[in-house]
Formats: sequence, C-alpha cells, structure tokens
Amino acid sequence: MVQTVSPAGNINLLKAKILRGETVVGLSCALGSAQIAEEFALAEFDYIYIDQQHGLTSQDTMIEMLRAIARSSTTPLVRVAQNNAGLIGQALDAGAEGIIVPMVNNAAEAQLAVAACRYFPQGRRSWGPIRAKYGLGTDPAAVNREVLCLVMIETSEALANVDEIVQTPGVDGIYLGPADLGISLGFPPLAFEQTTDERQLAAIERIRLACVRADRVIGTSGDPRSMRAAGFGMVTAAMDAMLIRSAVAKIDRLDAVLAGS
Amino acid sequence: MVQTVSPAGNINLLKAKILRGETVVGLSCALGSAQIAEEFALAEFDYIYIDQQHGLTSQDTMIEMLRAIARSSTTPLVRVAQNNAGLIGQALDAGAEGIIVPMVNNAAEAQLAVAACRYFPQGRRSWGPIRAKYGLGTDPAAVNREVLCLVMIETSEALANVDEIVQTPGVDGIYLGPADLGISLGFPPLAFEQTTDERQLAAIERIRLACVRADRVIGTSGDPRSMRAAGFGMVTAAMDAMLIRSAVAKIDRLDAVLAGS
Amino acid sequence: MVQTVSPAGNINLLKAKILRGETVVGLSCALGSAQIAEEFALAEFDYIYIDQQHGLTSQDTMIEMLRAIARSSTTPLVRVAQNNAGLIGQALDAGAEGIIVPMVNNAAEAQLAVAACRYFPQGRRSWGPIRAKYGLGTDPAAVNREVLCLVMIETSEALANVDEIVQTPGVDGIYLGPADLGISLGFPPLAFEQTTDERQLAAIERIRLACVRADRVIGTSGDPRSMRAAGFGMVTAAMDAMLIRSAVAKIDRLDAVLAGS
Amino acid sequence: MVQTVSPAGNINLLKAKILRGETVVGLSCALGSAQIAEEFALAEFDYIYIDQQHGLTSQDTMIEMLRAIARSSTTPLVRVAQNNAGLIGQALDAGAEGIIVPMVNNAAEAQLAVAACRYFPQGRRSWGPIRAKYGLGTDPAAVNREVLCLVMIETSEALANVDEIVQTPGVDGIYLGPADLGISLGFPPLAFEQTTDERQLAAIERIRLACVRADRVIGTSGDPRSMRAAGFGMVTAAMDAMLIRSAVAKIDRLDAVLAGS
Amino acid sequence: MVQTVSPAGNINLLKAKILRGETVVGLSCALGSAQIAEEFALAEFDYIYIDQQHGLTSQDTMIEMLRAIARSSTTPLVRVAQNNAGLIGQALDAGAEGIIVPMVNNAAEAQLAVAACRYFPQGRRSWGPIRAKYGLGTDPAAVNREVLCLVMIETSEALANVDEIVQTPGVDGIYLGPADLGISLGFPPLAFEQTTDERQLAAIERIRLACVRADRVIGTSGDPRSMRAAGFGMVTAAMDAMLIRSAVAKIDRLDAVLAGS
Amino acid sequence: MVQTVSPAGNINLLKAKILRGETVVGLSCALGSAQIAEEFALAEFDYIYIDQQHGLTSQDTMIEMLRAIARSSTTPLVRVAQNNAGLIGQALDAGAEGIIVPMVNNAAEAQLAVAACRYFPQGRRSWGPIRAKYGLGTDPAAVNREVLCLVMIETSEALANVDEIVQTPGVDGIYLGPADLGISLGFPPLAFEQTTDERQLAAIERIRLACVRADRVIGTSGDPRSMRAAGFGMVTAAMDAMLIRSAVAKIDRLDAVLAGS
Ligand SMILES: [Mg+2]
Ligand SMILES: [Mg+2]
Ligand SMILES: [Mg+2]
Ligand SMILES: [Mg+2]
Ligand SMILES: [Mg+2]
Ligand SMILES: [Mg+2]
Repeated sequence: MVQTVSPAGNINLLKAKILRGETVVGLSCALGSAQIAEEFALAEFDYIYIDQQHGLTSQDTMIEMLRAIARSSTTPLVRVAQNNAGLIGQALDAGAEGIIVPMVNNAAEAQLAVAACRYFPQGRRSWGPIRAKYGLGTDPAAVNREVLCLVMIETSEALANVDEIVQTPGVDGIYLGPADLGISLGFPPLAFEQTTDERQLAAIERIRLACVRADRVIGTSGDPRSMRAAGFGMVTAAMDAMLIRSAVAKIDRLDAVLAGS
Repeated sequence: MVQTVSPAGNINLLKAKILRGETVVGLSCALGSAQIAEEFALAEFDYIYIDQQHGLTSQDTMIEMLRAIARSSTTPLVRVAQNNAGLIGQALDAGAEGIIVPMVNNAAEAQLAVAACRYFPQGRRSWGPIRAKYGLGTDPAAVNREVLCLVMIETSEALANVDEIVQTPGVDGIYLGPADLGISLGFPPLAFEQTTDERQLAAIERIRLACVRADRVIGTSGDPRSMRAAGFGMVTAAMDAMLIRSAVAKIDRLDAVLAGS
Repeated sequence: MVQTVSPAGNINLLKAKILRGETVVGLSCALGSAQIAEEFALAEFDYIYIDQQHGLTSQDTMIEMLRAIARSSTTPLVRVAQNNAGLIGQALDAGAEGIIVPMVNNAAEAQLAVAACRYFPQGRRSWGPIRAKYGLGTDPAAVNREVLCLVMIETSEALANVDEIVQTPGVDGIYLGPADLGISLGFPPLAFEQTTDERQLAAIERIRLACVRADRVIGTSGDPRSMRAAGFGMVTAAMDAMLIRSAVAKIDRLDAVLAGS
Repeated sequence: MVQTVSPAGNINLLKAKILRGETVVGLSCALGSAQIAEEFALAEFDYIYIDQQHGLTSQDTMIEMLRAIARSSTTPLVRVAQNNAGLIGQALDAGAEGIIVPMVNNAAEAQLAVAACRYFPQGRRSWGPIRAKYGLGTDPAAVNREVLCLVMIETSEALANVDEIVQTPGVDGIYLGPADLGISLGFPPLAFEQTTDERQLAAIERIRLACVRADRVIGTSGDPRSMRAAGFGMVTAAMDAMLIRSAVAKIDRLDAVLAGS
Repeated sequence: MVQTVSPAGNINLLKAKILRGETVVGLSCALGSAQIAEEFALAEFDYIYIDQQHGLTSQDTMIEMLRAIARSSTTPLVRVAQNNAGLIGQALDAGAEGIIVPMVNNAAEAQLAVAACRYFPQGRRSWGPIRAKYGLGTDPAAVNREVLCLVMIETSEALANVDEIVQTPGVDGIYLGPADLGISLGFPPLAFEQTTDERQLAAIERIRLACVRADRVIGTSGDPRSMRAAGFGMVTAAMDAMLIRSAVAKIDRLDAVLAGS
Repeated sequence: MVQTVSPAGNINLLKAKILRGETVVGLSCALGSAQIAEEFALAEFDYIYIDQQHGLTSQDTMIEMLRAIARSSTTPLVRVAQNNAGLIGQALDAGAEGIIVPMVNNAAEAQLAVAACRYFPQGRRSWGPIRAKYGLGTDPAAVNREVLCLVMIETSEALANVDEIVQTPGVDGIYLGPADLGISLGFPPLAFEQTTDERQLAAIERIRLACVRADRVIGTSGDPRSMRAAGFGMVTAAMDAMLIRSAVAKIDRLDAVLAGS
C-alpha cells in the first residue's frame, strides 16, 4: 500500500495497472489544498490529478500536494496549465509521475507534449529531478519508460486529427475534455455523463474508438462503474470542488431564504 | 444578502438573529482553505467558524479566510487556539465578528475571554482594528455591543461551574464541546448526535438548561433540524474536513482492495 | 454598491460604464498586497488592475487579491505577464473580469489575446471557471459578452499597426503604455503626464485617434480630470508602489543625512 | 549607510542614537508587506517597527520583513502581539534588534519583558540566534547590551504605576499608546496629536516626565518636528496602512458617488 | 521502511526503540524548509525534530514539514516555542508524534507539559486530531500511550529540581539544552561536545544520572557514537543550518578576500 | 562588502569581475529557501544563482531570495525556467542582475534571450523595475550595460551551432549544462568533473574554445580551483541540495539498517 523509495526508482503503479488493462479510478484536486490531497492520497485511489490549468494551483501548491501524496501508493498526475515544456518539466522534476496536457490539437502538438515529458532520445526533457529523484528515480531510460504522458482531445480541430494524435509515439493515452469539446462543437460545457446530444456522443465515441484501435487508454471524469461499462479505462470519480459544493447543497438550512432564490 | 461597508460599522447579523431567537445554522472550516471558506460564504449560511484550535489555520490562513467571507452576509467567527488575549485580539482585528473560546472552566476564565473580546470598560481589548474597521467599524462602544463572545464548556470542571460560566457578564452564549466533555467524563470523543450514554446526555442537558435559565444561546455541531428540536439555538451543520471525508467514502472504487482492509 | 452573486452571473460593471461613455477611474496594485487590494476595493473606484507583468504578483497573490476585491463593486482586471493563453485563462478562471495584455504589436497578436479571453466561437478559452463561477458566472455566451479585453500598444511596431490592432474584433479597448512606447521610440520611460516631447505626444495622439475612429476606449495612468480632458476614457489614478514612495518622500526626517545624498 | 556583518556582531544603531540624545524617526509596518518594509528600509529612517500586535504580520511575514530591512542601516523593531517570552524570543532570534512590548501595566510585567529580551544574568532569553547571528551577533553579553527593550504604557493601571515601570532595570524606554490609554481613561482612541482633552494630555505629560526623571526615551507616533518639540525622543512618523488610506482619500474620482456617502 | 496507515493508528516507532533501549539518532530542522525535511526523512534516521522555538518554523511550515516526513518511517517531533498547551496541541493535531518542551524548570512545569501532551485522564489535551488521525490515530488511550513527551532541562533552576522533573509521571525523557544551561551557569553557550569546564560537565552528568535513576531517556545533540559512549540514548546528529554553514565554510573561494576578515 | 543603493543604480559587480578577467565563484539555490540564500549571500561569494528551472523556486520564493541576497555584495542571478520574455522580465524586475537561459540551441534563440534581457535598442524588455530600481537602477542605458545575459549550451543542436550562439551580440557568456549535453549525446547525466568519456570531454572543450575565440566567459559547476585550471572563468562551487545530501550521507547512524540497503 506504500511505495518504497529505492535508488533504482519507483515504478509507476498507475501505468502498470493501465498496461495490465485494469480500469483505474482517481480523484482530482482543484481547490489548491494539500490537506485534501493528503486525505485523497490516503484513500488509496489509483491516482490523483492535480489541476494546474483550471484549479487554484500555484507552483508552491503543486509541490506541497506532491509531497502530501508521496506517503501513499497513489500515483500523482499534474494537468499542466498549457502544452509548455517549462511547465511540464517543473511538474515532473517536482515529482509528478504523469502529465495531462490540455488542448492538444494535432500530431505536432502531441509530439511537443511527448518531447517535454521524456529525456533524449524519446524527447528533450532537461535534467534536474530535484524531487523526482525520490520517486521515479534518476535513470533517464527508466524514467522515460515510467512517466505517463496523456494528452487531451477537446476541440473540433483535435477531433478532426484524432488518429494522428492518438498514434503519436510516446502518447500513452487520451484524456477526454467533454466540456471544452462540447463548447467547440457548439454545445454547452457538460461532462460526459451529462451529455445527451447524439452528435456530441458520436464525437466522443469516435475518439474512444481511435484509442481502442491504437491501444491507448482513454480517461475522463464520471462514475467509475458506468464509465467502465462505456469503455473508459481511466475514470476520475470526483473533483474536490464538486464534492464540497454538492455536499453543501444537501445541508438543511432550516427556513433560510437562500441567496439568489 | 450582502453587507454594506459604512463608516458607522456593520451590525453583527448573527448576533441579531440570535437575539431575535432564530436558530442559526453555520459551517466550520478546519482544512485551512480560503477557497472553501469562500464557497461556504456564498452559500449564505448564518455563520462560518474558522477553527484555529484544531484546524490547519495559521494566522495568514485566517486572514485570507476572513477576506474570502467578507463578500457575503455570512458572519465570520474564529475559534481561537486557546483563551489568550493576544490571539483573540488578532482574530478580532483581522475581522472576526465573534470568538469561540475553548476550554473555559470557570468564571475567572470566562471573564478573561470577555475582557479580551471587548474594549474598556467591558474589557481590555487593545485598539488597532486593521481589518475590523471594514467590518464592525471603529466606534468602541458599537463594536463592544456587536462582537459575539462564545465560550466552550467541555470539561468536568466546567460542568461543575456551569452556572457561573454561563452567567458571566459579556458571555453571549455557550458552544458545547461534546467530544472533549465526553473524554473528560470518561467516554469516547463523540459528537452530540452520536452520544447514547445517559450520563453524558444528562451532562449536556444540564449545560443546556443553564443556558436557558441565563437566556444565553447554546450551540454545537449536528443536524440543524434535530438540534433545533433538541433546544439548540446555534448549529454547525458541517465541517469541511468531514464533508470531504464522507464524500470520498461513498465513491465507488470498482474492485479496489482498500487501504487497511 | 455591492454585487449580488446569482446563478445567472454578474454583469461587468466596468464594461457597462465604458459602453455608456463614462470616464472610468481605477487604481493599480504592484506591491502584491491583498490588504492594499481590499483597501482599494472598499474605496469603490471603478476598477483595480492587478499587475502580474511588473508587479510582485504570484499566482497565489493574484488569487488572494481577487478574493479581496470581490467584496466590493469594483471590477477586477489583471495585466498578465505576457500574451499567453495559459496565463489569461488562469486569471479569468480565478475571477478577473477583464484582462490587460501587454506588448501587442499587430493584429495577429491582438487576435491571440482575444481568443484567450473568450470561449468558442469568439475564442478558444478553455472551460473551468473555478472562481469565475462566483463572478461573471457559467454561461459561456454571457461570459464572452461581459469579459473585457484590453490590449497594450507600447512599441513602435504596434504604433505602425495601430489601426489593425484597434479594429481587431473582440478588442474592447487600448491600454496605453507610455513608458515602453517612449523607450521604443528612443525617449526616456515616462508616464503620459510627464511627456513633453512633441514627437512622443504625437504618437500617443495617433493611438488615441485610432481608438476614437474605432469606437474603442483608451486608458492609461494619470490624473483623472486632466486625462479625461485629454480624451482618455479610462484612467488609472494611482499605483500602490508610487503612493507609498511619494508619501514617504514627504515625511520630515528632522536633520537626517539621507541615503545617497 | 549600510551595516557590515562581522563575527563580532553589529551595534544597534538606533540605541546608540538614542543614548546620544538624538531624536530618532521611524516608520511602522502593519500591512504585512515585505516590499513596503524594503521600500521603507531604503528610505533610511532610523527604525522600522513591524507590528505583530495589530498588523497583519504572521511569523513568516515578520521574517521576510526582517530580511528585507537587513539591506539597510535602519534598525528593525518588532511590536510583539503580547508580553510573552516565546514571541519575544522568536522575534529576536529572527533578527529584531529591539522589541516593543504592549500593555505593560506594572513593574512585574516590565520585568517579564526585560527577562524575555535578554540572556542570563539580565534575563532568561533562550539561546538560538538563527538569524540574529547575522545581526547583533553571538556574544551573549554584547547582545544583551545592544538589544532595545521598550514597553508600552497604555492603560490607567500602567499610568498609576508609571514610575515603577519606567525605572525597571533593563527597560530602555517607553512607547506611548495614546489610543489605548485614551480608551482606558474613557476617551476616544486618538493619537497624541489628535488629543485635545486636558485630562488626557496631562496623563501623557505625567508619563513623559517620569521618563525624563528616569532618563529613559519616550516614543510614540506623530509628526517628527512637533513631537520633538513636545519632548519625545522617538517618533514613528507614519504607518503604511495610513499612508495608503490617506493617499487614496486624496485622489480625484471625478463625479463618482462614493461608498457610504 | 514505511509506515502503514491503519484505522488502528500507528505505533510510535521512536518510542518503541527507546523503550527497547536502542540509542536513537535523529536530525533537526531549523531552516523552515519542507524539502530539507523530506530529504532528511528519506535518509531514514530515527527521528526528525522540527524546531519551532529557535528555527524559522511558522505553523504553516510545521504542517508542510510534517507532511513531508509522513512518507518515511522517521518519527516526527516538534520542539514547541514554549511550554504552552495551545502550541503543543496544534503540533500534535498536525501530526507530531512527540513534543520537546523547552525551559521546564520544576515539577509543576513538567506536569503542564505532560497534561498538554495527553488526553484525560493522563492530561487535558483537547480533541481534534485533524492530521494526527493519519498517524497515531483516533483512540485516545492508544494515542496517550504512544505520544512521546520530552522536557528540556536547561537552567540552573531546573538543575536544582532535576529529580522532581525527571520523575514526573508522563515525562518520557529529558532533552538536554547545554547552551542555555551553560549561559544560566555563567558559561558560554556551547554544545555538550564543546564543553570543557568541569563544573558544567558535572552539571550535565548530574542530569544524566537522574535520568538513569528514573529510567528515562536523555537526549541532546552531538556525534552519535561518542554521545552513546557518554551515556546518551538519543542523539541529534545534525541540524540543517549547521550542515549548510559548515559545508559552505569548506568551499574553496580561490583568492577571495572574505567578509569580515 | 556591501553595495550602496543610490539613485544612479548599482554596477553589476559580477560582470565587472568577469570583464576584468577574474575567475568568479558562486553558489546555487535549488531548495527554495530564502534563509539558505541569505546564508550564502553573507558568505560573500561572487554570485548566487537561483534556479527556477529545476529548483523548487516559485515566483514568491524567487522574490524572497532576491531580497535576502540584497544585504550582501553578492550578485544575484536567476536561471529562468525557459527562454521566455515574460519570465526573464519578471526575474529582472524583481532584482536579478543576470539571467541564465537554459536550452539555447541556435542564434535565433540566443537573440530572443538577449532581447528579453535588455531594453530598446538592444532588446525589447518592458519597463517596470519594481524592485530592480533598488539595484541596477532606473536608467535604461545603464541597466542594459550592467545586466548579465548568459545562455546555456546543453544539447547536440546547440553544440552544432556553438559559434553562432557564442557570438550573438549581447550574449555575455555561456553557462555549460554538462548533464543535459551528456544526455543529448547519449551519455549519462554527469557534471563536468564526473565526465570521463573522451567524446563528451571533446564536446565541452569545443564549447570552451568557442568562448575563448569570442571573448566570452564560460561557466559551469565544479571545484573552483580545478575548473579555473581547466579554463572556466565562472564556477558554481556548490548547490544547496547537494550540500545537504552529501552532508547527511556522512553522518554516523550507529548500527542502523539503512533504507534501500
Ligand atoms: Mg478542458
Ligand atoms: Mg473541544
Ligand atoms: Mg509596458
Ligand atoms: Mg496599544
Ligand atoms: Mg535551549
Ligand atoms: Mg540543463
């Protein structure tokens, strides 16, 4: 249940499960709270993804969260703010074992993401694993093998290029962004499970099938059981901000006249 | 739904509701997250209590949370780490409109709590309302009238002195600490609603009745509706850490072998 | 004087005033102090612009300042460090209601700025309004309409392209950078009001007239009354660092031998 | 203009000036901004006092401000939150060269303040000068000689005990708290210069004369020139929060309808 | 090498080793760096003691360091700033498994330290293990048994009362403060290993023998092997600030003329 | 030993030494500790380089470190996370006196680095020296002359373009990245002094000779004396993380069975 820290470096438990074909289940952190990250970590889900793109996650916060997660066997992922080698390098050096890269629209952008995630010859990551030495370790070849690189398909342009993105060498899988994809297709920003429009569902299925063909995992947020049934191999079961918000909404306020109502 | 900021200072909306006999409902923050404080504030409960005693709440965190709450009509309370004039002064200067003082065991300790909460002649608070000037304002007499001073009865010693504590001039009410009271009486640390031992329930009822006699509000955590039925006028409906923990416990992890099981 | 928070989202009060033709007056924050931001906010100027480019404003600081401003009716703007979609998205998601984009030199760069500020179809902003949901709300079309996108013209290249920049669809106005424009033209880095060289004044007037032709607001820092008279519709009346510096300079030090003199 | 850092430790420039009979002039920091502290430091006043009692000054903030001031010849003082040996020790270890102790009401409390400021045999300060080693150095006797211990007389009780407080060995001077003294005497919380009531002025003069008799410096906030004329040897010419507030109040807002008016 | 986190709570590995008679070796953190704490933790010494008294350790810093240490089997201790129930409670709630209490001068002060470290009936600790629930767990009796309470003997008064302090029920051991003891006895502030004065050595030996008689562990800083030979059961082998300082002193600066020389 | 702060701005002491042909010796900070930065600064090496690329250095941390260094005559450099004008501008505005730009692969990239470091006409830096005004000052021409721009050659592509990079106007010198260069050439990530492969040594020598030809300084990490002998004019003698790590490795743990062994 806990990872040993050895000179040889850890293996990426999440990647191993994905490669074995297990459906992995995780949680995401957008509130910028290292304490929530620690609580999530000790719940021993397969992964936690720290959201630097839309979450309140500064570099300091990201580092504190990665430290908090390190006490568990949960694999830490970071969704970087953008497809940028500097940000990807900082997340990996700080101990992320996988990266989720938003808004990847074509093969060239997918290649940039891959290059930022891995050292030569697979990529161009720069050397300096300040905290990563405690995790995946210091052997470039081993680290290249273990790091997980997931790219997001979430625009109409990406949809048109889905096969070239999915098949880019070094891309380990796709993380679906249904809300952005929806907006890009002219729909409202909904999660997969909220989607009912047939055209939007067809777009998502097209992406999923491209992953099946290329033998890549596909992930998104949703209910683990139903998402697994729908063919997703990676499911983010909950986001901290939503857990808080929906829990608050259920509280009995007695006779209060609520805000905005 | 929002408070205006005027030179004359705000009124303490929570105190006004309590004095009108309304049952007030609030939330508490122990995770040290200003974003959760803001989410809670916008839900427009009657109060938020920031827990400096057992929460992960540094002085910086407390200030950020008080800023976050200021956009709403929710009244901010701080449970200070101990019955200490310096800490009480810092919380009030930073904008808390009420203080919850833990471990008050007799009238002398209650008087210290009161003195720290109010300026001369009701107390000995020191002048310097760096952020409080934006809230309850700068008129010492008005501020003295508006600040809420709640003391916690949560030991067997306090139980023995319940009437002298409750009747201390300037004590606006009692906040019950059932877990500490339970430990002090030889029981496990349970919330009121978890308590089944008749002796412990009798002790709590004794405190409640002392409040009724002295016309002071009594508060604790629990379900608002059932706590109101049990005679509590102030109910903390949820704590952030517990919301997260219980929400995580309900998530379907598919076939995961869980930590510790 | 205070904004209500409703599911429907706020309107951008600053943009509304600008569209009504009012001359708006604001303050800017470079010191990285959320307390100064709160003090400024409660002074109820039309806007506060948080300077991420030249100010000491980390992401954490920006978020705290946006929380501080939310208690007032003042509209929060962020000048991002550079014309970058990731930074613009983070500022908007954190609750900025308008963006000032520095160093926009041509129409292509102006289009990038616009695209980062708005969701499809006006742009390519990514969905995830973690704090913005408390402000402009969650309806993409409404948010697109309310967000203010201001671009800075502050180089000789931009001056040459002034009309194409100003007329770029989605650009709501121009924020003039006289110091950078001055340097770029071979002059010292001066504010508008310090400028006396006719060639530099002519350059600025050329930009202002382009705004008049395109019916876009033009803003910069200076004295509100004289800047309004000079045809500026948006005036940043003071920056925190300068207020402190000039106030200190006026203090009587008795007979002190000063540093450097 | 800058202090050298030598193994032998610095001398306390402020104390030396006071002992030479110079009227020293300083600034105070309540906003919790290390950048303002640095700006103040480079203005090379005689001292900066960091306000931990009423300012927004966490331990982290205090340390950052002490680091900022160290580049100048300005002497850093800390007003601790209360007369507490732990807080006084932390401020001195972090590099404060003098302490202002609030609410000292009698000789016993003055002795506690002195004991916390100095090592045996003059006091009971605990050894561990983590940053102070860069400043006053590591020789206990030299540090005891250089540290400045100022206590505040600001209550009617202290007024009654003024001579015993002032004459307490190790008390280097008095810092007057006119606002608290005023409240304690039944007056409004005013600074010395705002005070017009003869009884309040007589109380202050009584304190000042006790200092004259005991050959101790007396300080407070006010205009340096007039305070010197009134017999004060130490004058805090401005507080950051007030500089900002009064500067904002002077800004022309054009035709704005102001908050609260 | 790593602790499992179970509902039943961890055992305190350090206390177990001490009770088995092992000489335990640790490191101390005064620089306030969570990254150094993590590096130290992964070196798998027996304990890390976080210094809140003389180190640059705010509450936020302490929490981050406790999180960093949790990934290892190293036992985290906190030296609190003073013998204060509020500070001791905050450190234990945040996950410290043992407390070092400075400046304990007599049995009454030792009893206060013990009472703050343990729940009723052994003490009066207040219930609220916000992070401690991840460590020693939530059973009050088990936690009381596992928490380590060490008190410091470091004044001449404490020396006179050494037996009554050492024999106070609930005191698990003594942590020697040679520098403060030295100052209090009229000597310079030296570590044990630097001490050569026979009278000072005799005082230390007197304390050590009192521990032997009472079957309590005695700890201090020094070289593990020689300190074990001298009869110490707990040795802090290094402090981060000293490691850095002595490492820097050894660097070849070529021909530089050094500061202060 | 300490720099005076004058309106005219400081001179860059490091650049002056380099131009005089002195071999300069520095230290680097990757742990994100302002206290270590201050300790390093007071040791009065020629420079400190703050590592934003691989160190745990947020923007807030960088600013605090720059403040800490300002009390000494040590010149502060920042290695930015990437060759990005926004990051370079923020570091310079915050007070860095030189920039180390990683991964510069050709003349075009070198020109971008130069342009970001200097104002027009040498570059396109934007005006706003919020803290730099305390250092190199406010005269654009003087600042342009004083700022040090070092670019890193650390890939096979850069090696192929070594002369065009080195000869780019405005590039003051080269900072060698042996680990990245090694990886890029198919070797392990080693420092210069660890390198034994003749081909790798030849590559480094080729870079060094290009610097000699172009009269540019070349720097890297290593032992100052041997690196000077090897022809390096700038030597980073130690990194904080390595000092801690190697110091810990030397500590006697008595009979401990170590982690991983
Ligand atoms: Mg998306
Ligand atoms: Mg309690
Ligand atoms: Mg500009
Ligand atoms: Mg006072
Ligand atoms: Mg000691
Ligand atoms: Mg490199």
